[in-house]
Amino acid sequence: MASALLRSRVKRPSYLNKLAKAEDLVDLFPHGSYIGWSGFTGVGYPKKVPTALADHVEKNKLEGKLKYSLFVGASSGAETENRWAALDMIERRSPHQVGKEIAKGLNSGRIKFFDKHLSMFPQDLINGWYTMNKPSGKLDVAVIEASAITENGGIIPGASVGASPELVQMADKVIIEVNTTTPSFEGLHDIYVPEQAPYSKPMMIMRPEDRIGTPYIPVDPEKVVAIVEGDYPDKTAPNTPEDETSQAIAGNLIEFLKHEVNHGRLPNNLLPLQSGIGNIANAVVGGLSKGGANFKNLKVWTEVLQDTFLDLFDSGNLDFATATSIRFSPDGFKRFYDNWDRYADKLLLRPQGISNSPEIIRRLGCIGMNTPVEVDIYAHANSTCVFGSRMLNGLGGSADFLRNSRYSIMHTPSIRPSKTDPTGVSCIVPFATHIDQTEHDLDMVVTEQGFADVRGLSPRERARVIIKNCAHPDYQPILTDYLDRAEFECLKKGMGHEPHLLFNAFKMHKNLAENGTMKINSWD
Amino acid sequence: MASALLRSRVKRPSYLNKLAKAEDLVDLFPHGSYIGWSGFTGVGYPKKVPTALADHVEKNKLEGKLKYSLFVGASSGAETENRWAALDMIERRSPHQVGKEIAKGLNSGRIKFFDKHLSMFPQDLINGWYTMNKPSGKLDVAVIEASAITENGGIIPGASVGASPELVQMADKVIIEVNTTTPSFEGLHDIYVPEQAPYSKPMMIMRPEDRIGTPYIPVDPEKVVAIVEGDYPDKTAPNTPEDETSQAIAGNLIEFLKHEVNHGRLPNNLLPLQSGIGNIANAVVGGLSKGGANFKNLKVWTEVLQDTFLDLFDSGNLDFATATSIRFSPDGFKRFYDNWDRYADKLLLRPQGISNSPEIIRRLGCIGMNTPVEVDIYAHANSTCVFGSRMLNGLGGSADFLRNSRYSIMHTPSIRPSKTDPTGVSCIVPFATHIDQTEHDLDMVVTEQGFADVRGLSPRERARVIIKNCAHPDYQPILTDYLDRAEFECLKKGMGHEPHLLFNAFKMHKNLAENGTMKINSWD
Repeated sequence: MASALLRSRVKRPSYLNKLAKAEDLVDLFPHGSYIGWSGFTGVGYPKKVPTALADHVEKNKLEGKLKYSLFVGASSGAETENRWAALDMIERRSPHQVGKEIAKGLNSGRIKFFDKHLSMFPQDLINGWYTMNKPSGKLDVAVIEASAITENGGIIPGASVGASPELVQMADKVIIEVNTTTPSFEGLHDIYVPEQAPYSKPMMIMRPEDRIGTPYIPVDPEKVVAIVEGDYPDKTAPNTPEDETSQAIAGNLIEFLKHEVNHGRLPNNLLPLQSGIGNIANAVVGGLSKGGANFKNLKVWTEVLQDTFLDLFDSGNLDFATATSIRFSPDGFKRFYDNWDRYADKLLLRPQGISNSPEIIRRLGCIGMNTPVEVDIYAHANSTCVFGSRMLNGLGGSADFLRNSRYSIMHTPSIRPSKTDPTGVSCIVPFATHIDQTEHDLDMVVTEQGFADVRGLSPRERARVIIKNCAHPDYQPILTDYLDRAEFECLKKGMGHEPHLLFNAFKMHKNLAENGTMKINSWD
Repeated sequence: MASALLRSRVKRPSYLNKLAKAEDLVDLFPHGSYIGWSGFTGVGYPKKVPTALADHVEKNKLEGKLKYSLFVGASSGAETENRWAALDMIERRSPHQVGKEIAKGLNSGRIKFFDKHLSMFPQDLINGWYTMNKPSGKLDVAVIEASAITENGGIIPGASVGASPELVQMADKVIIEVNTTTPSFEGLHDIYVPEQAPYSKPMMIMRPEDRIGTPYIPVDPEKVVAIVEGDYPDKTAPNTPEDETSQAIAGNLIEFLKHEVNHGRLPNNLLPLQSGIGNIANAVVGGLSKGGANFKNLKVWTEVLQDTFLDLFDSGNLDFATATSIRFSPDGFKRFYDNWDRYADKLLLRPQGISNSPEIIRRLGCIGMNTPVEVDIYAHANSTCVFGSRMLNGLGGSADFLRNSRYSIMHTPSIRPSKTDPTGVSCIVPFATHIDQTEHDLDMVVTEQGFADVRGLSPRERARVIIKNCAHPDYQPILTDYLDRAEFECLKKGMGHEPHLLFNAFKMHKNLAENGTMKINSWD
């Protein structure tokens, strides 16, 4: 029954007796089950079992009759998660998601979703906080993708670790999908799950390359109820390309880093870099691999690696990178596999509880860089909810890094187009409509217009420099007028520490909703 | 010149040659100086030098002509800091403050103030972020109160440590005020200043009683320019007494902790407690020392200890407590000094960079409890700014603890009186007017009405349970109506993850400003 390739990947013989077809496992998933999946940023997610369940629901017209609480480290594959959402199979989801159908489900009230700091999610899970309603206090089933299995039955993940170690630990039953279409990732992981208080210990990581765990996820073999062979690789999309705006942002950011090196506040090789996802992140990392930046011996401590990190390795400027996920494009994965020996000993994948750990991020003094929905003039930032209500993807690790990094940097275009106005949306606003990062967290705001270094500034100083250096020229007068009026009104009342026209603070957003642009004529 | 008492406290002979009178040190403080003071929550602050400088300004009519940038771990003595504010001697202040005059100064725009996570302030200071405008990159003078001095010239602080180790390290000159009116606190401190990245190491604290540092603040003796004898103790106020509301809140909170013990999510002796300042905190700690609570062998890892912790020690239920400051009332200090041997080996004072360290708070799994200005229905909280603009005291360590604790708890009365309506202000609001703690941080909201356990809940579930369990009956219908309408409006538009009537979200606050109560007739 087992292919030769599968036998070569599964080193524990007893597991081969548990070989099963995904479609025969449907009974393990009764309505109301609490389920954990591996996966993070669309890599390393299970494919066969979720698809078989979706087929089962579709074929038997069980939409809305088989609904689950679904926990995944971050996002899984769009083709599985979206399909589950479209078939009304998701009752509850946490702590992150990506996909049109699932976003629709939670914004229309069908899916109960909550986002949580990605460092904290596995810890809260282990503490039983998401299974308080279950008599067992456990998840029913975890479905985990592996690239290989060790002799002691441990799981060697593929391109992501995420929350898999904790999902396995919390599950009554474990199904392992062994994906034989990609190479074994053996040796690329460092798996460590901290004991919980009062038994927890320091995590002895002092440099990005330090190892403190095992190369596999430990599993109690008796919990493993089935092994399924996976037959297609992660379906990733091409990376978002750089554009003029993202290159200008990257240029400003690199300028700032040089400035810090010149003033002796950063070493020549900087400090470990964290970079988010998307075209700005790509442009920043791309910028670092070009000659102009001239930073050597860089190291990366981040959540996700994108294709541009391969360029940074190839430039010779990057010594080591660690993350919880490598989300390459199909071309990027090919390049990675074709040159495995060049990259493998400079790479390490860790659980998200480690990659996003406040303890380690602070200790290493990371340079944290993320893109928000909007930033306000006082340096609060919205990372999640458009108009304060509509969820995009979730918080992710943004707050883990922005709260704890040595340099906490938000980079964003100063404007985005609305449907009717190419500069209809200002990403610099008077008052963020949802706040995920506070004024106490951010050190720097960067747009294509310039950068605002807000360290040590009072709120009113901060607002002036953010408007002047970062806002788009179309919005500078509008924002300055807001600030002038807010200062006038609040200072005379003796409440001017952080002046607001509170009852008019969302007027630009209102105008956008009603007239398709944030450009208002007046604050009256 | 030196009194016998002073000689007995100053073990380093060379320092006695530097004995000076405060009024002779005025020239060390030219206009524009960057100054650090010891002190935290109104204890352990310098008294003689600040007073001499204020006298100098007053006598010579130098108001507004001698202005300083003033950095103190948290708040110093009201009688010094307020006087400096009233005499317009403060240009800039960070990261916390308490006092009527200084609050007036910063809310009227005279004082540039920024609040910062108290764990992060000393680290940013050491990294030179607050002295970027100084050619030296240093503070000019640090004035530090000591209760004694070691043979190697190290400072043994009094009732607080705060940011003194870092202020001393960053200062060109150090003045030490040796306060001989209180006992020497020798042995009560554990001073450790982490190296900064890339040289930082794990902090090897695994239990509240673990020591990792020295019993004194290390000082380069050549930087010490003067020793001044202090002649009066910290001027603290009596503790805010418990009242019926705070006792009801404490009762609900203790009920919840018992519930967690019963469900096996907390050990019998709980986890290390963090408790804020004020009458609710007093009632909670008071409640734990009474028979009904029945928790034994408690430990405390917190920022500040108040008088009720002495009761908790005396009840036999508290095994150990550590903080960065003991802010007792005058009676509390007398009780402490009279029974030194009973308390001293169960107490440890640490720098605020350690007491508030995310690394340690997470590792120990603290139970964090704080009081906000207001909490919104989705569990965002305002800790600092009334009407989003008027600063009260500053962020303090609230976000250090609420982000990182195992249990992050906000406790507040459900209502406060306005000038004209005894229930005119609801502390549960639709949208917090300033956000310091996000929905991703809080696990529990407690009022005298009940408690809302929001772990694992989606925003809409959270809102229902907070309104139902925590809001005052006068406001339940108003808040429920807001939520119903917001759900209706947002869900139909497919933007209902966290439903808001965004352009009307502050209507209750507007009504309070205009009509003296948050009770509105309708959301139309």
